[in-house]
Amino acid sequence: MNWRARLLALDGMMPGMDDTGGLAWTTLADAPEDAELVFLGFDDGRACFAAVPPQGDAGPRLANPAVWQAMAALSPDDLAIYGGARSLVDWHARHRYCPNCGGNTKLAKGGWQRNCESCGAPHFPRTDPVTIMLVEHDGKLLLGRGLGWPEGRYSTLAGFVEPGESIEEAVAREVLEETGVRVSNVTYVASQPWPFPSQLMLGCHGYGDNEDITLDTTELADAGWYSREDVGAALEGNGPFIAPPPQAIANHLLRWWMER
Amino acid sequence: MNWRARLLALDGMMPGMDDTGGLAWTTLADAPEDAELVFLGFDDGRACFAAVPPQGDAGPRLANPAVWQAMAALSPDDLAIYGGARSLVDWHARHRYCPNCGGNTKLAKGGWQRNCESCGAPHFPRTDPVTIMLVEHDGKLLLGRGLGWPEGRYSTLAGFVEPGESIEEAVAREVLEETGVRVSNVTYVASQPWPFPSQLMLGCHGYGDNEDITLDTTELADAGWYSREDVGAALEGNGPFIAPPPQAIANHLLRWWMER
Ligand SMILES: [Zn+2]
Ligand SMILES: [Zn+2]
Repeated sequence: MNWRARLLALDGMMPGMDDTGGLAWTTLADAPEDAELVFLGFDDGRACFAAVPPQGDAGPRLANPAVWQAMAALSPDDLAIYGGARSLVDWHARHRYCPNCGGNTKLAKGGWQRNCESCGAPHFPRTDPVTIMLVEHDGKLLLGRGLGWPEGRYSTLAGFVEPGESIEEAVAREVLEETGVRVSNVTYVASQPWPFPSQLMLGCHGYGDNEDITLDTTELADAGWYSREDVGAALEGNGPFIAPPPQAIANHLLRWWMER
Repeated sequence: MNWRARLLALDGMMPGMDDTGGLAWTTLADAPEDAELVFLGFDDGRACFAAVPPQGDAGPRLANPAVWQAMAALSPDDLAIYGGARSLVDWHARHRYCPNCGGNTKLAKGGWQRNCESCGAPHFPRTDPVTIMLVEHDGKLLLGRGLGWPEGRYSTLAGFVEPGESIEEAVAREVLEETGVRVSNVTYVASQPWPFPSQLMLGCHGYGDNEDITLDTTELADAGWYSREDVGAALEGNGPFIAPPPQAIANHLLRWWMER
Protein backbone atom coordinates (compact mmCIF):
# COMPACT_ATOMS: atom_id res chain seq x y z
CA MET A 1 0.00 0.00 0.00
CA ASN A 2 1.21 3.46 -0.94
CA TRP A 3 4.34 1.89 -2.42
CA ARG A 4 3.80 3.85 -5.60
CA ALA A 5 3.43 7.13 -3.72
CA ARG A 6 6.29 9.38 -2.73
CA LEU A 7 6.76 12.39 -0.47
CA LEU A 8 8.77 15.48 -1.36
CA ALA A 9 11.58 15.96 1.18
CA LEU A 10 11.31 19.45 2.67
CA ASP A 11 13.28 20.91 5.57
CA GLY A 12 10.83 23.63 6.60
CA MET A 13 10.52 25.34 3.23
CA MET A 14 13.97 24.28 1.97
CA PRO A 15 14.19 21.58 -0.70
CA GLY A 16 16.02 18.37 0.21
CA MET A 17 18.59 17.22 -2.36
CA ASP A 18 19.65 13.70 -3.35
CA ASP A 19 23.21 12.60 -4.22
CA THR A 20 22.81 13.58 -7.87
CA GLY A 21 21.72 17.16 -7.09
CA GLY A 22 18.05 16.43 -7.79
CA LEU A 23 15.08 16.90 -5.45
CA ALA A 24 15.03 14.25 -2.72
CA TRP A 25 11.89 12.11 -2.26
CA THR A 26 10.96 9.84 0.63
CA THR A 27 7.86 7.74 1.35
CA LEU A 28 4.57 8.69 2.95
CA ALA A 29 5.67 6.80 6.06
CA ASP A 30 8.09 9.66 6.69
CA ALA A 31 5.29 12.25 7.04
CA PRO A 32 4.32 13.16 10.64
CA GLU A 33 1.19 11.21 11.57
CA ASP A 34 -1.03 14.30 11.80
CA ALA A 35 0.47 16.09 8.76
CA GLU A 36 -1.83 17.34 6.05
CA LEU A 37 -0.78 15.99 2.64
CA VAL A 38 -1.04 17.91 -0.61
CA PHE A 39 -1.29 15.90 -3.83
CA LEU A 40 1.18 17.35 -6.35
CA GLY A 41 0.32 15.12 -9.30
CA PHE A 42 1.61 11.94 -10.93
CA ASP A 43 5.18 11.44 -12.03
CA ASP A 44 6.01 8.26 -13.93
CA GLY A 45 2.88 6.63 -12.52
CA ARG A 46 3.78 7.46 -8.94
CA ALA A 47 1.55 9.78 -6.91
CA CYS A 48 3.60 12.69 -5.52
CA PHE A 49 2.76 14.43 -2.25
CA ALA A 50 4.14 17.15 0.00
CA ALA A 51 3.39 17.58 3.72
CA VAL A 52 2.14 20.91 5.06
CA PRO A 53 4.75 22.19 7.55
CA PRO A 54 3.72 23.50 11.00
CA GLN A 55 4.60 27.05 9.95
CA GLY A 56 4.52 28.92 6.65
CA ASP A 57 6.98 31.54 5.55
CA ALA A 58 6.58 34.79 7.48
CA GLY A 59 7.97 38.17 6.69
CA PRO A 60 8.43 39.94 3.40
CA ARG A 61 7.53 38.38 0.09
CA LEU A 62 11.17 37.63 -0.69
CA ALA A 63 13.31 34.57 -1.21
CA ASN A 64 16.08 34.10 1.33
CA PRO A 65 19.59 33.60 -0.09
CA ALA A 66 19.85 29.94 0.95
CA VAL A 67 16.67 29.07 -0.95
CA TRP A 68 17.90 30.99 -4.00
CA GLN A 69 21.13 29.05 -3.96
CA ALA A 70 19.30 25.74 -3.64
CA MET A 71 16.97 26.70 -6.49
CA ALA A 72 19.85 27.69 -8.78
CA ALA A 73 21.18 24.12 -8.47
CA LEU A 74 17.91 22.43 -9.51
CA SER A 75 17.01 21.31 -13.04
CA PRO A 76 14.10 23.18 -14.71
CA ASP A 77 11.76 20.22 -14.09
CA ASP A 78 12.72 19.94 -10.41
CA LEU A 79 12.47 23.71 -10.04
CA ALA A 80 8.89 23.62 -11.34
CA ILE A 81 7.93 20.82 -8.93
CA TYR A 82 9.58 22.50 -5.94
CA GLY A 83 8.13 25.93 -6.80
CA GLY A 84 4.57 24.67 -7.14
CA ALA A 85 4.84 22.50 -4.01
CA ARG A 86 6.37 25.32 -1.97
CA SER A 87 3.60 27.75 -2.94
CA LEU A 88 0.92 25.20 -2.06
CA VAL A 89 2.20 24.00 1.32
CA ASP A 90 3.03 27.57 2.37
CA TRP A 91 -0.52 28.66 1.54
CA HIS A 92 -1.96 25.75 3.56
CA ALA A 93 0.31 26.48 6.53
CA ARG A 94 -0.91 30.09 6.58
CA HIS A 95 -4.61 29.29 6.03
CA ARG A 96 -5.53 27.01 8.91
CA TYR A 97 -8.28 29.51 9.88
CA CYS A 98 -11.20 30.87 7.88
CA PRO A 99 -10.81 34.57 6.96
CA ASN A 100 -14.60 34.81 6.77
CA CYS A 101 -15.48 33.61 10.30
CA GLY A 102 -12.25 32.68 12.14
CA GLY A 103 -13.21 28.99 12.32
CA ASN A 104 -10.89 26.06 11.65
CA THR A 105 -10.32 25.03 8.05
CA LYS A 106 -9.55 21.55 6.79
CA LEU A 107 -7.64 20.43 3.72
CA ALA A 108 -9.90 19.10 0.94
CA LYS A 109 -9.68 17.83 -2.66
CA GLY A 110 -6.13 16.58 -2.25
CA GLY A 111 -4.90 19.98 -1.11
CA TRP A 112 -6.37 22.12 -3.86
CA GLN A 113 -8.95 23.50 -1.46
CA ARG A 114 -9.59 24.13 2.25
CA ASN A 115 -13.09 24.16 3.70
CA CYS A 116 -14.23 26.00 6.82
CA GLU A 117 -15.62 23.67 9.46
CA SER A 118 -17.78 26.48 10.92
CA CYS A 119 -19.29 28.56 8.08
CA GLY A 120 -18.57 26.09 5.27
CA ALA A 121 -16.78 28.64 3.05
CA PRO A 122 -14.40 27.04 0.53
CA HIS A 123 -10.93 28.59 0.16
CA PHE A 124 -8.57 28.11 -2.75
CA PRO A 125 -4.77 28.40 -3.03
CA ARG A 126 -3.80 31.88 -4.02
CA THR A 127 -1.59 33.14 -6.84
CA ASP A 128 -0.91 36.87 -7.21
CA PRO A 129 -0.47 38.36 -10.67
CA VAL A 130 2.57 40.68 -10.77
CA THR A 131 3.62 42.81 -13.74
CA ILE A 132 7.34 43.17 -14.51
CA MET A 133 8.30 45.47 -17.34
CA LEU A 134 10.93 46.53 -19.82
CA VAL A 135 10.34 50.27 -20.26
CA GLU A 136 12.24 51.72 -23.21
CA HIS A 137 12.93 55.31 -24.22
CA ASP A 138 15.33 56.45 -26.92
CA GLY A 139 16.98 53.02 -27.02
CA LYS A 140 17.60 52.95 -23.27
CA LEU A 141 15.96 50.81 -20.59
CA LEU A 142 14.48 51.98 -17.28
CA LEU A 143 15.91 49.92 -14.42
CA GLY A 144 15.55 50.37 -10.69
CA ARG A 145 17.04 49.26 -7.39
CA GLY A 146 14.63 48.18 -4.66
CA LEU A 147 14.97 49.23 -1.04
CA GLY A 148 17.33 46.90 0.80
CA TRP A 149 18.76 45.32 -2.36
CA PRO A 150 22.50 44.59 -2.49
CA GLU A 151 24.54 47.58 -3.65
CA GLY A 152 24.76 47.75 -7.44
CA ARG A 153 21.87 45.37 -8.20
CA TYR A 154 19.37 46.79 -10.74
CA SER A 155 16.40 45.15 -12.40
CA THR A 156 13.20 45.81 -14.31
CA LEU A 157 10.43 47.49 -12.31
CA ALA A 158 7.64 45.26 -11.02
CA GLY A 159 4.40 45.51 -9.07
CA PHE A 160 1.22 43.68 -8.11
CA VAL A 161 -1.84 43.91 -10.33
CA GLU A 162 -4.58 45.56 -8.24
CA PRO A 163 -8.28 44.60 -8.26
CA GLY A 164 -10.00 46.25 -11.25
CA GLU A 165 -6.91 46.58 -13.46
CA SER A 166 -5.86 44.97 -16.73
CA ILE A 167 -2.19 43.94 -17.17
CA GLU A 168 -1.60 46.95 -19.40
CA GLU A 169 -3.15 49.39 -16.89
CA ALA A 170 -1.15 47.89 -14.04
CA VAL A 171 2.14 48.37 -15.95
CA ALA A 172 1.38 52.03 -16.68
CA ARG A 173 0.22 52.80 -13.11
CA GLU A 174 3.14 51.09 -11.44
CA VAL A 175 5.85 52.79 -13.55
CA LEU A 176 4.17 56.20 -13.19
CA GLU A 177 3.87 55.78 -9.40
CA GLU A 178 7.44 54.57 -8.89
CA THR A 179 9.34 56.79 -11.36
CA GLY A 180 6.99 59.43 -12.83
CA VAL A 181 7.54 57.92 -16.31
CA ARG A 182 4.40 57.65 -18.45
CA VAL A 183 4.22 54.40 -20.42
CA SER A 184 2.34 53.59 -23.62
CA ASN A 185 2.11 50.73 -26.15
CA VAL A 186 2.40 48.00 -23.53
CA THR A 187 2.73 44.49 -24.96
CA TYR A 188 3.00 41.09 -23.27
CA VAL A 189 6.30 39.21 -23.60
CA ALA A 190 6.30 36.12 -21.34
CA SER A 191 5.07 34.77 -17.99
CA GLN A 192 6.68 32.74 -15.22
CA PRO A 193 5.51 31.38 -11.86
CA TRP A 194 7.52 32.59 -8.87
CA PRO A 195 7.13 30.80 -5.54
CA PHE A 196 7.70 33.62 -3.00
CA PRO A 197 5.08 33.00 -1.88
CA SER A 198 3.03 32.37 -5.04
CA GLN A 199 3.19 34.83 -7.89
CA LEU A 200 2.46 34.79 -11.59
CA MET A 201 5.04 37.12 -13.13
CA LEU A 202 3.68 38.86 -16.23
CA GLY A 203 6.61 40.12 -18.31
CA CYS A 204 5.78 43.11 -20.53
CA HIS A 205 7.41 45.71 -22.75
CA GLY A 206 6.35 49.35 -23.12
CA TYR A 207 7.62 52.71 -24.26
CA GLY A 208 8.36 55.55 -21.85
CA ASP A 209 6.93 58.90 -23.01
CA ASN A 210 9.27 61.01 -20.86
CA GLU A 211 12.86 60.59 -19.68
CA ASP A 212 12.83 62.61 -16.44
CA ILE A 213 12.48 60.46 -13.35
CA THR A 214 10.62 61.37 -10.15
CA LEU A 215 11.56 58.63 -7.71
CA ASP A 216 9.09 57.23 -5.17
CA THR A 217 11.61 56.76 -2.37
CA THR A 218 9.19 54.59 -0.37
CA GLU A 219 9.46 51.97 -3.15
CA LEU A 220 12.83 52.41 -4.85
CA ALA A 221 16.37 53.32 -3.77
CA ASP A 222 17.27 54.45 -7.30
CA ALA A 223 16.24 54.27 -10.95
CA GLY A 224 17.91 55.22 -14.20
CA TRP A 225 18.18 54.66 -17.94
CA TYR A 226 20.67 52.07 -19.21
CA SER A 227 21.96 51.65 -22.75
CA ARG A 228 22.10 48.44 -24.77
CA GLU A 229 25.86 48.33 -24.09
CA ASP A 230 25.31 48.70 -20.32
CA VAL A 231 22.72 45.92 -20.23
CA GLY A 232 24.76 43.59 -22.44
CA ALA A 233 27.85 44.05 -20.26
CA ALA A 234 25.86 43.56 -17.04
CA LEU A 235 24.39 40.28 -18.35
CA GLU A 236 27.97 39.11 -18.95
CA GLY A 237 28.91 40.09 -15.40
CA ASN A 238 31.03 43.17 -16.11
CA GLY A 239 28.58 46.05 -16.57
CA PRO A 240 27.78 49.18 -14.57
CA PHE A 241 25.25 47.23 -12.49
CA ILE A 242 24.64 43.68 -11.22
CA ALA A 243 22.00 41.98 -13.40
CA PRO A 244 19.19 39.81 -11.99
CA PRO A 245 20.08 36.08 -11.63
CA PRO A 246 19.39 33.63 -14.49
CA GLN A 247 16.38 31.95 -12.87
CA ALA A 248 14.47 35.26 -12.56
CA ILE A 249 12.16 36.33 -15.39
CA ALA A 250 13.86 39.78 -15.29
CA ASN A 251 17.04 38.15 -16.64
CA HIS A 252 15.04 36.50 -19.42
CA LEU A 253 13.37 39.82 -20.28
CA LEU A 254 16.71 41.63 -20.49
CA ARG A 255 18.04 38.95 -22.86
CA TRP A 256 14.85 39.13 -24.94
CA TRP A 257 15.36 42.89 -25.25
CA MET A 258 19.04 42.51 -26.27
CA GLU A 259 18.11 40.07 -29.06
CA ARG A 260 15.32 42.23 -30.34
CA MET B 1 -14.27 68.75 6.54
CA ASN B 2 -14.61 65.82 4.12
CA TRP B 3 -16.59 68.04 1.77
CA ARG B 4 -14.40 67.01 -1.13
CA ALA B 5 -14.83 63.30 -0.35
CA ARG B 6 -17.60 61.11 -1.69
CA LEU B 7 -18.96 57.65 -0.97
CA LEU B 8 -19.94 55.10 -3.61
CA ALA B 9 -23.61 54.18 -3.17
CA LEU B 10 -23.90 50.40 -2.82
CA ASP B 11 -26.97 48.36 -1.91
CA GLY B 12 -25.19 45.27 -0.56
CA MET B 13 -23.03 44.56 -3.59
CA MET B 14 -25.41 46.19 -6.13
CA PRO B 15 -24.39 49.53 -7.64
CA GLY B 16 -26.67 52.50 -6.97
CA MET B 17 -27.60 54.51 -10.07
CA ASP B 18 -28.24 58.24 -10.45
CA ASP B 19 -30.89 59.85 -12.70
CA THR B 20 -28.56 59.88 -15.70
CA GLY B 21 -27.76 56.17 -15.50
CA GLY B 22 -24.35 56.75 -13.91
CA LEU B 23 -23.03 55.41 -10.61
CA ALA B 24 -24.63 57.18 -7.64
CA TRP B 25 -22.40 58.84 -5.02
CA THR B 26 -23.29 60.13 -1.58
CA THR B 27 -21.22 61.68 1.21
CA LEU B 28 -19.20 60.05 3.96
CA ALA B 29 -21.92 61.09 6.40
CA ASP B 30 -24.07 58.38 4.83
CA ALA B 31 -21.67 55.60 5.89
CA PRO B 32 -22.67 53.64 9.03
CA GLU B 33 -20.66 54.97 11.97
CA ASP B 34 -18.65 51.77 12.44
CA ALA B 35 -18.20 51.04 8.72
CA GLU B 36 -14.71 50.39 7.40
CA LEU B 37 -13.92 52.71 4.49
CA VAL B 38 -11.83 51.76 1.47
CA PHE B 39 -10.10 54.55 -0.43
CA LEU B 40 -10.74 54.06 -4.16
CA GLY B 41 -8.65 56.97 -5.45
CA PHE B 42 -9.12 60.58 -6.53
CA ASP B 43 -11.60 61.65 -9.16
CA ASP B 44 -11.58 65.29 -10.23
CA GLY B 45 -9.76 66.17 -7.01
CA ARG B 46 -12.36 64.46 -4.82
CA ALA B 47 -11.35 61.49 -2.67
CA CYS B 48 -13.60 58.52 -3.45
CA PHE B 49 -14.47 55.86 -0.86
CA ALA B 50 -16.61 52.74 -0.55
CA ALA B 51 -17.88 51.24 2.71
CA VAL B 52 -17.28 47.57 3.50
CA PRO B 53 -20.70 45.87 3.80
CA PRO B 54 -21.54 43.56 6.75
CA GLN B 55 -21.44 40.52 4.45
CA GLY B 56 -19.48 39.67 1.32
CA ASP B 57 -20.79 37.66 -1.61
CA ALA B 58 -21.20 34.01 -0.75
CA GLY B 59 -21.63 31.08 -3.05
CA PRO B 60 -20.16 30.34 -6.43
CA ARG B 61 -17.80 32.70 -8.18
CA LEU B 62 -20.56 33.90 -10.50
CA ALA B 63 -22.31 37.14 -11.21
CA ASN B 64 -26.03 37.13 -10.48
CA PRO B 65 -28.30 38.27 -13.35
CA ALA B 66 -29.36 41.51 -11.61
CA VAL B 67 -25.74 42.63 -11.24
CA TRP B 68 -25.02 41.73 -14.86
CA GLN B 69 -27.96 43.84 -15.98
CA ALA B 70 -26.84 46.79 -13.85
CA MET B 71 -23.28 46.48 -15.18
CA ALA B 72 -24.43 46.39 -18.80
CA ALA B 73 -26.00 49.82 -18.27
CA LEU B 74 -22.83 51.46 -16.91
CA SER B 75 -20.30 53.46 -18.97
CA PRO B 76 -16.83 51.89 -19.29
CA ASP B 77 -15.42 54.37 -16.73
CA ASP B 78 -18.19 53.69 -14.21
CA LEU B 79 -17.87 49.96 -14.83
CA ALA B 80 -14.15 50.10 -13.98
CA ILE B 81 -14.83 52.03 -10.75
CA TYR B 82 -17.66 49.73 -9.68
CA GLY B 83 -15.71 46.58 -10.58
CA GLY B 84 -12.61 47.58 -8.61
CA ALA B 85 -14.67 48.80 -5.63
CA ARG B 86 -16.81 45.67 -5.59
CA SER B 87 -13.76 43.38 -5.59
CA LEU B 88 -12.15 45.34 -2.76
CA VAL B 89 -15.10 45.66 -0.38
CA ASP B 90 -16.08 42.04 -0.97
CA TRP B 91 -12.56 40.91 -0.08
CA HIS B 92 -12.63 43.03 3.12
CA ALA B 93 -16.03 41.68 4.11
CA ARG B 94 -14.76 38.11 3.79
CA HIS B 95 -11.40 38.72 5.52
CA ARG B 96 -12.31 40.02 8.98
CA TYR B 97 -10.30 37.12 10.47
CA CYS B 98 -6.67 36.16 10.02
CA PRO B 99 -6.21 32.91 8.04
CA ASN B 100 -2.88 32.42 9.83
CA CYS B 101 -4.09 32.51 13.45
CA GLY B 102 -7.86 33.15 13.49
CA GLY B 103 -7.44 36.57 15.18
CA ASN B 104 -9.31 39.74 14.24
CA THR B 105 -7.98 41.76 11.31
CA LYS B 106 -8.25 45.50 10.88
CA LEU B 107 -8.34 47.59 7.72
CA ALA B 108 -5.06 49.46 7.04
CA LYS B 109 -3.48 51.69 4.40
CA GLY B 110 -6.78 53.07 3.20
CA GLY B 111 -8.15 49.61 2.54
CA TRP B 112 -5.28 48.19 0.48
CA GLN B 113 -4.25 45.99 3.39
CA ARG B 114 -5.62 44.30 6.54
CA ASN B 115 -3.43 43.60 9.54
CA CYS B 116 -3.94 40.86 12.12
CA GLU B 117 -4.34 42.25 15.63
CA SER B 118 -3.04 38.98 17.15
CA CYS B 119 -0.09 37.66 15.09
CA GLY B 120 0.57 40.86 13.12
CA ALA B 121 0.42 39.20 9.69
CA PRO B 122 -0.42 41.61 6.87
CA HIS B 123 -3.03 40.52 4.32
CA PHE B 124 -3.54 41.97 0.86
CA PRO B 125 -6.57 42.09 -1.44
CA ARG B 126 -6.59 39.11 -3.71
CA THR B 127 -6.86 38.88 -7.49
CA ASP B 128 -6.96 35.48 -9.19
CA PRO B 129 -5.37 35.05 -12.61
CA VAL B 130 -7.69 33.11 -14.94
CA THR B 131 -6.84 31.98 -18.48
CA ILE B 132 -9.54 32.15 -21.16
CA MET B 133 -8.66 30.82 -24.58
CA LEU B 134 -9.48 30.71 -28.25
CA VAL B 135 -8.44 27.20 -29.33
CA GLU B 136 -8.38 26.78 -33.11
CA HIS B 137 -8.11 23.67 -35.30
CA ASP B 138 -8.62 23.51 -39.03
CA GLY B 139 -10.25 26.99 -39.03
CA LYS B 140 -12.76 26.05 -36.32
CA LEU B 141 -12.99 27.22 -32.72
CA LEU B 142 -13.38 25.06 -29.61
CA LEU B 143 -16.28 26.36 -27.50
CA GLY B 144 -17.91 24.87 -24.44
CA ARG B 145 -21.00 25.12 -22.28
CA GLY B 146 -20.49 25.21 -18.51
CA LEU B 147 -22.61 23.21 -16.09
CA GLY B 148 -25.76 25.12 -15.22
CA TRP B 149 -25.43 27.61 -18.07
CA PRO B 150 -28.59 28.67 -19.94
CA GLU B 151 -29.46 26.30 -22.78
CA GLY B 152 -27.61 27.18 -25.99
CA ARG B 153 -24.98 29.44 -24.40
CA TYR B 154 -21.41 28.60 -25.51
CA SER B 155 -18.16 30.38 -24.81
CA THR B 156 -14.38 30.05 -24.84
CA LEU B 157 -12.96 27.64 -22.23
CA ALA B 158 -11.47 29.21 -19.10
CA GLY B 159 -9.75 28.17 -15.89
CA PHE B 160 -7.72 29.39 -12.92
CA VAL B 161 -3.93 29.54 -13.15
CA GLU B 162 -2.57 27.15 -10.50
CA PRO B 163 0.48 27.77 -8.30
CA GLY B 164 3.63 26.90 -10.24
CA GLU B 165 2.21 27.45 -13.74
CA SER B 166 2.93 29.99 -16.48
CA ILE B 167 -0.03 31.37 -18.48
CA GLU B 168 0.90 29.16 -21.42
CA GLU B 169 1.09 26.01 -19.26
CA ALA B 170 -2.25 26.82 -17.61
CA VAL B 171 -3.96 27.16 -21.01
CA ALA B 172 -2.63 23.79 -22.21
CA ARG B 173 -3.46 21.96 -18.95
CA GLU B 174 -6.97 23.36 -18.68
CA VAL B 175 -7.98 22.56 -22.28
CA LEU B 176 -6.48 19.05 -22.05
CA GLU B 177 -8.28 18.36 -18.73
CA GLU B 178 -11.66 19.66 -19.87
CA THR B 179 -11.77 18.39 -23.48
CA GLY B 180 -8.79 16.10 -24.15
CA VAL B 181 -7.54 18.54 -26.80
CA ARG B 182 -3.77 19.15 -26.78
CA VAL B 183 -2.85 22.80 -27.37
CA SER B 184 0.37 24.31 -28.71
CA ASN B 185 1.67 27.72 -29.83
CA VAL B 186 -0.20 29.64 -27.13
CA THR B 187 -0.03 33.43 -27.47
CA TYR B 188 -1.43 36.23 -25.31
CA VAL B 189 -4.19 38.39 -26.79
CA ALA B 190 -5.65 40.71 -24.12
CA SER B 191 -6.49 40.98 -20.41
CA GLN B 192 -9.49 42.27 -18.46
CA PRO B 193 -10.37 42.55 -14.77
CA TRP B 194 -13.56 40.73 -13.78
CA PRO B 195 -15.12 41.48 -10.39
CA PHE B 196 -16.72 38.13 -9.42
CA PRO B 197 -15.12 38.19 -6.98
CA SER B 198 -11.78 39.51 -8.28
CA GLN B 199 -10.21 37.98 -11.33
CA LEU B 200 -7.66 38.97 -13.92
CA MET B 201 -8.83 37.39 -17.16
CA LEU B 202 -5.89 36.47 -19.41
CA GLY B 203 -7.17 36.09 -22.98
CA CYS B 204 -5.05 33.77 -25.15
CA HIS B 205 -5.04 32.02 -28.52
CA GLY B 206 -3.63 28.58 -29.26
CA TYR B 207 -3.83 25.77 -31.78
CA GLY B 208 -5.48 22.43 -31.03
CA ASP B 209 -3.41 19.42 -32.13
CA ASN B 210 -6.34 16.99 -32.23
CA GLU B 211 -10.03 17.34 -33.07
CA ASP B 212 -11.57 14.52 -31.03
CA ILE B 213 -13.10 15.69 -27.76
CA THR B 214 -13.13 13.78 -24.46
CA LEU B 215 -15.44 15.80 -22.25
CA ASP B 216 -14.81 16.24 -18.50
CA THR B 217 -18.45 16.11 -17.47
CA THR B 218 -17.65 17.42 -13.99
CA GLU B 219 -16.63 20.73 -15.63
CA LEU B 220 -18.54 21.07 -18.90
CA ALA B 221 -22.01 20.18 -20.14
CA ASP B 222 -20.82 20.14 -23.76
CA ALA B 223 -18.02 21.27 -26.08
CA GLY B 224 -17.64 21.40 -29.85
CA TRP B 225 -15.94 22.98 -32.83
CA TYR B 226 -17.59 26.01 -34.45
CA SER B 227 -16.83 27.51 -37.86
CA ARG B 228 -16.15 31.15 -38.66
CA GLU B 229 -19.69 31.37 -40.08
CA ASP B 230 -21.20 29.92 -36.88
CA VAL B 231 -19.28 32.34 -34.64
CA GLY B 232 -20.03 35.37 -36.85
CA ALA B 233 -23.73 34.56 -36.87
CA ALA B 234 -23.79 33.97 -33.09
CA LEU B 235 -22.14 37.35 -32.47
CA GLU B 236 -24.95 38.92 -34.52
CA GLY B 237 -27.53 37.07 -32.45
CA ASN B 238 -28.70 34.48 -34.99
CA GLY B 239 -26.15 31.67 -34.85
CA PRO B 240 -26.29 28.04 -33.71
CA PHE B 241 -25.40 29.14 -30.15
CA ILE B 242 -25.86 32.12 -27.82
CA ALA B 243 -22.61 34.15 -27.70
CA PRO B 244 -21.16 35.61 -24.47
CA PRO B 245 -22.41 39.12 -23.62
CA PRO B 246 -20.55 42.23 -24.86
CA GLN B 247 -18.98 43.13 -21.48
CA ALA B 248 -17.25 39.73 -21.17
CA ILE B 249 -13.71 39.31 -22.52
CA ALA B 250 -14.91 36.13 -24.28
CA ASN B 251 -17.01 38.31 -26.58
CA HIS B 252 -13.99 40.52 -27.31
CA LEU B 253 -11.86 37.44 -28.04
CA LEU B 254 -14.42 36.04 -30.49
CA ARG B 255 -14.52 39.39 -32.32
CA TRP B 256 -10.71 39.52 -32.37
CA TRP B 257 -10.66 36.04 -33.94
CA MET B 258 -13.27 37.00 -36.58
CA GLU B 259 -11.22 40.03 -37.67
CA ARG B 260 -8.01 38.07 -37.85
ZN1 LIG C 1 -15.67 30.14 8.11
ZN1 LIG D 1 -3.03 36.45 12.77
